[in-house]
Amino acid sequence: MTMKIYFAGSIRGGRDNKELYFQLIQHLAQYGQILTEHIGNRNLTEFGEDGPSDEWIYNRDMSWVQESDVVIAEISIPSLGVGYEVGKAEDMNKKILCLYKNQQDKSLSAMINGNPNMKIARYETLEDAVSHIDNFFQLLE
Amino acid sequence: MTMKIYFAGSIRGGRDNKELYFQLIQHLAQYGQILTEHIGNRNLTEFGEDGPSDEWIYNRDMSWVQESDVVIAEISIPSLGVGYEVGKAEDMNKKILCLYKNQQDKSLSAMINGNPNMKIARYETLEDAVSHIDNFFQLLE
Repeated sequence: MTMKIYFAGSIRGGRDNKELYFQLIQHLAQYGQILTEHIGNRNLTEFGEDGPSDEWIYNRDMSWVQESDVVIAEISIPSLGVGYEVGKAEDMNKKILCLYKNQQDKSLSAMINGNPNMKIARYETLEDAVSHIDNFFQLLE
Repeated sequence: MTMKIYFAGSIRGGRDNKELYFQLIQHLAQYGQILTEHIGNRNLTEFGEDGPSDEWIYNRDMSWVQESDVVIAEISIPSLGVGYEVGKAEDMNKKILCLYKNQQDKSLSAMINGNPNMKIARYETLEDAVSHIDNFFQLLE
């Protein structure tokens, strides 16, 4: 059966990493079906609505988290939605990988970094991030 | 019995609103004990550690959410931790008020705005925010 992957990344928190999300999603696609391909859409801005209403988006995304086998969260840009989603994924006992790009002027939330249920992979380059993803899926098998 | 209030605001997501958090906490203090007074600490920066380790901070904050009667979240600055905390407060059936300062260049996460369990009060000025807080506590009585 095809694995279902929920990729979480910032939308309204800011789209500075949209190109990175796109690349990560491209790589993830070899492992299964990406439920949230729109996160990597270069045309989706921080005002981007990808549904008829926020209630609709909320219900769709929560169904997708429920339906997913694994959650890959790119957490380098602070985002209320991503924080909320990884918490719900934790409640649902999903396998979660958090990818965090090291940044000199920022530090990662203690709610994620200090959380024993979160596996956090820190990276510098896209290649590093891709290796972390490959390791994560190898360990799942 | 004194009401216990968990105030959530951005730390590592950015401290641009620390003065606002301080003012809101000052106002909230009339309604009970603020478990998270450090959120309004002007000396706490986005690198600020307010505990010996992130694990310690995570455990303390989750205990405080559990212990609280109400959660007041200032959600204007995107923050992984605040998104995580409001989700956990929701799981614990806490009474939650989200305060959001209207901003032209940003829009609120659909995970919060589209979530039927979140009461969101939008405001422009500190006075507006204070009125929302007063209304929230009056309705609790």
